[in-house]
Amino acid sequence: MTHFHGIFPYLVSPVDQTKGTVLESSLRHLIEHLISSGVHGLSPLGSTGEYAYLSQELRNEVVRITVDQAAGRVPVLAGVASFSTSDACFQAEQYANLGVDGMVLISQKMYPLSDKAQLGYFQTIAESFPEKSMTVYTNPGLLGDVLSISLLNELSYIPNIEYVKDASSNTGRLLTMLNTFGERVKIFSASAHIPLLVIKLGGVGWMAGPACVLPKQCVELYELATRGDWDTALAKQKEMWQINEAFTQYALASCIKASLNIQGFNVGDPILPQEPLNDVAIAHLQQIIAQLNE
Amino acid sequence: MTHFHGIFPYLVSPVDQTKGTVLESSLRHLIEHLISSGVHGLSPLGSTGEYAYLSQELRNEVVRITVDQAAGRVPVLAGVASFSTSDACFQAEQYANLGVDGMVLISQKMYPLSDKAQLGYFQTIAESFPEKSMTVYTNPGLLGDVLSISLLNELSYIPNIEYVKDASSNTGRLLTMLNTFGERVKIFSASAHIPLLVIKLGGVGWMAGPACVLPKQCVELYELATRGDWDTALAKQKEMWQINEAFTQYALASCIKASLNIQGFNVGDPILPQEPLNDVAIAHLQQIIAQLNE
Amino acid sequence: MTHFHGIFPYLVSPVDQTKGTVLESSLRHLIEHLISSGVHGLSPLGSTGEYAYLSQELRNEVVRITVDQAAGRVPVLAGVASFSTSDACFQAEQYANLGVDGMVLISQKMYPLSDKAQLGYFQTIAESFPEKSMTVYTNPGLLGDVLSISLLNELSYIPNIEYVKDASSNTGRLLTMLNTFGERVKIFSASAHIPLLVIKLGGVGWMAGPACVLPKQCVELYELATRGDWDTALAKQKEMWQINEAFTQYALASCIKASLNIQGFNVGDPILPQEPLNDVAIAHLQQIIAQLNE
Amino acid sequence: MTHFHGIFPYLVSPVDQTKGTVLESSLRHLIEHLISSGVHGLSPLGSTGEYAYLSQELRNEVVRITVDQAAGRVPVLAGVASFSTSDACFQAEQYANLGVDGMVLISQKMYPLSDKAQLGYFQTIAESFPEKSMTVYTNPGLLGDVLSISLLNELSYIPNIEYVKDASSNTGRLLTMLNTFGERVKIFSASAHIPLLVIKLGGVGWMAGPACVLPKQCVELYELATRGDWDTALAKQKEMWQINEAFTQYALASCIKASLNIQGFNVGDPILPQEPLNDVAIAHLQQIIAQLNE
Repeated sequence: MTHFHGIFPYLVSPVDQTKGTVLESSLRHLIEHLISSGVHGLSPLGSTGEYAYLSQELRNEVVRITVDQAAGRVPVLAGVASFSTSDACFQAEQYANLGVDGMVLISQKMYPLSDKAQLGYFQTIAESFPEKSMTVYTNPGLLGDVLSISLLNELSYIPNIEYVKDASSNTGRLLTMLNTFGERVKIFSASAHIPLLVIKLGGVGWMAGPACVLPKQCVELYELATRGDWDTALAKQKEMWQINEAFTQYALASCIKASLNIQGFNVGDPILPQEPLNDVAIAHLQQIIAQLNE
Repeated sequence: MTHFHGIFPYLVSPVDQTKGTVLESSLRHLIEHLISSGVHGLSPLGSTGEYAYLSQELRNEVVRITVDQAAGRVPVLAGVASFSTSDACFQAEQYANLGVDGMVLISQKMYPLSDKAQLGYFQTIAESFPEKSMTVYTNPGLLGDVLSISLLNELSYIPNIEYVKDASSNTGRLLTMLNTFGERVKIFSASAHIPLLVIKLGGVGWMAGPACVLPKQCVELYELATRGDWDTALAKQKEMWQINEAFTQYALASCIKASLNIQGFNVGDPILPQEPLNDVAIAHLQQIIAQLNE
Repeated sequence: MTHFHGIFPYLVSPVDQTKGTVLESSLRHLIEHLISSGVHGLSPLGSTGEYAYLSQELRNEVVRITVDQAAGRVPVLAGVASFSTSDACFQAEQYANLGVDGMVLISQKMYPLSDKAQLGYFQTIAESFPEKSMTVYTNPGLLGDVLSISLLNELSYIPNIEYVKDASSNTGRLLTMLNTFGERVKIFSASAHIPLLVIKLGGVGWMAGPACVLPKQCVELYELATRGDWDTALAKQKEMWQINEAFTQYALASCIKASLNIQGFNVGDPILPQEPLNDVAIAHLQQIIAQLNE
Repeated sequence: MTHFHGIFPYLVSPVDQTKGTVLESSLRHLIEHLISSGVHGLSPLGSTGEYAYLSQELRNEVVRITVDQAAGRVPVLAGVASFSTSDACFQAEQYANLGVDGMVLISQKMYPLSDKAQLGYFQTIAESFPEKSMTVYTNPGLLGDVLSISLLNELSYIPNIEYVKDASSNTGRLLTMLNTFGERVKIFSASAHIPLLVIKLGGVGWMAGPACVLPKQCVELYELATRGDWDTALAKQKEMWQINEAFTQYALASCIKASLNIQGFNVGDPILPQEPLNDVAIAHLQQIIAQLNE
């Protein structure tokens, strides 16, 4: 059992769309900034990382650079997302070879799948890489479906499925999970939830895009929450909540790339046909970031 | 400003469907039980109270009996729900005359309404009864729509709109509300949320159907939460969460009437064409209630 | 078996909201206009008729005036809509006493109902008034749920359930119904469907709000369709389709009341908190009506 | 302007999942059968063709074999579907090189896209291959979103965007399109619509999975519809409608592969984690196919 916990920023995928290459120095610079800000891990190729918009070559580049730059200082969990089981295994094999510590498993769907079919998807990937720690990701907003509690419970018995991240915005579901799995699978908060509450309920950390934008503040919130200082943590959480709100208000990748560009990270635009944020949205983000960086 | 807080059970409406009358002694018996269990208020004619299924005559009877039996020991907040503004005012006038302390305002919708139109609905009712405390109820599941934060904010400036109850299951929305309204409007938890978390965030209590079924336990949870004993409260909350889960799993009125009949309150069946719960569901509820009553 | 067919306008409910009375002369004037335009029946208290916004007293007034003014020249089918079975029967009794020829049955829902529960609702009403022709109305947009084909099939065996009106916009569902019921239940088109196609498939007519606004044109379309002149009918249908589009674009009652006011019928505003259409929408309707009245 | 019309079966993608190869002889056998049954074109890599489940290598193989086997006897329109504009262009380039006559353009979405962003997607692909005929595919069920009429209208001015296929099940939308585009873009029916009605409205044919299963019957229906024999065509359509119903009842690829296997085409199972149909569903399909093959 691994002991992942704390703040895991979802990394953006900085890309030069004209050349079709990763903006390597931007990505390395961002990773260095995050690690020096105290984050506890890195997660490339999540939805923030625009996994669905990247060729496999670009995905591999993002993972290679992340693992190399992290250099063992923090664990790297790469997103594996596909419609087909075999393609997901193909992706996982490459990331395993590139040296990731674990993977975040995402099931893309075209037609409704039974729990049994979905169990097959996750189980096949997890059992093919038994030495890698697996996190199951469920996101009704993005993926059009929420993984059922009974499916998640079945998955909890697979030894290397160690974490779940639920982006349903229904905090009650998290308590149901905690009551169902106990310690068999641990829970990471997504941005749709209030991280402080997830940690107080028994969650182990926060895997999200905002942590890419405001890593120091996220780390501080995590430390306050685990230290048990409820009043200071709640005041901090109330102040920081506006960044979660902004991230649900705007298209995710556009919003996080804009937030990083505002801070000088030159991560480029979201991948076409996605559009960069407009000026009003950028000004809104600038104001939030300035206020939270004070 | 009133000081409502704590546990407000939503009352069922016990009806003899053959005679078309309220089962008065059942209702009085239930109310007496709830008050002696320590609840802080009573809310007849919520969705638990099957407001949409009752004639105005039956609604008035439910409110009359509730106010009479409460006899000033705890406040009574009656549900006012309509499609039309004038009918809502007509209902409110009768409940005001019957002596309620406040009302829970619900907007039924047939066609989409602009924020301005909905503001008109709530404002007209609230301003017609300035001496009554008003709680605005927003429930996307039942009512097909969620009141926007900006609408709720406008409503927060109306002096006698003092509370809001949001049944969206999105706990983050509550934090957004708290950040937006501050102290202008206070928040009650609905069952879709984890009451302990709502209270810890700054909510003032829990208005819900489960409190009608397990009043002593709900009062105890509230007291633990306000006393600041997080660990005991969380253990209690985890144990009690199964009743919230059951209440979202089954049709609400059917579920609460069954739960009360299990405990001997003889509140009758849900109003037709709703169906009583089947035997499997009843056995499930019996088991939960027995466990939580230990 | 009755032989309803052709164009059945859904009547608006003209109301003086200050006095709380029906605008009787406006309603009589409208009915007279519709009958002289050749419509084959009248349907008060549909969703166009704002049934959910009217007190029972006003509903009775609307039905009384409609039956009186129709004076047997065309059949009158009144809408019966409720959450509870007993209230629906109460409404039906009054409309039966007022002399309607049939009723359009609508099931309002708060919690999901099983097919068996819904069967009970419709069957109880229909069997209580065996001499009245019943039309079952299913509208997923307004009522949040579509009646299943197997439920409709069960209803088709109840002798006085003679017609169904489906407002799902899914024309394929109509063909499925025709294949399932055969002649046991006949189909009326709603505005969400293309009336010409419904009639060509085997439907018996068109029950809708647009027929209240452009009765002559609707009657002409119906006659072209039944006469078998496909080319002229299709050209006419293409031209008229913009009124159906407008009626799905704007809130229904607001749109039809505005369209009648434009033509001088003084039917008043939609009932609060609904809002009258804005000037842009009114100008849009004016242009369509002018073009189709040429 | 091309003159595509008539029956265009969506081809399944027969795959040996153990070897990761296309079942070439099965695919060639199916294509030969379809052409000899009189179909007017072939469309590989639609949703029926499981585009989202195939690697680019397998997609290319499917297109190569289809073009080769068709050998110019009927046009081949390959599906191009991606989240990113650049990947869609990459796919299109390969299919253009493989000699397709046109492409069916599909926009996969992760986050909501503005009309302007989606215009960019389709326009970039279409203008990169000006000599290829493009069909825009809109499917709210599969793709979570419907392309707006105003977006489709903008697309209609791009010279090589010649056809649209709408799988919304809302036949009224097709009439709106016909009224909006006139002859600028022609409409193909999808299975969610009643093909006979689409053709009578002015559509040019039927692009769908059922045509892969019952090609002779589909061709006959098309011929009856275009010949103007409404009564025979309607009787035929009513009989055939059950295959459309079955195809919306079961997961699409599973259903069509099962239907072909029933008829001896050995196209294999749907790609994992999709499941083959269960025995009850297969028996249901067998009965429909037997009846329609009589």
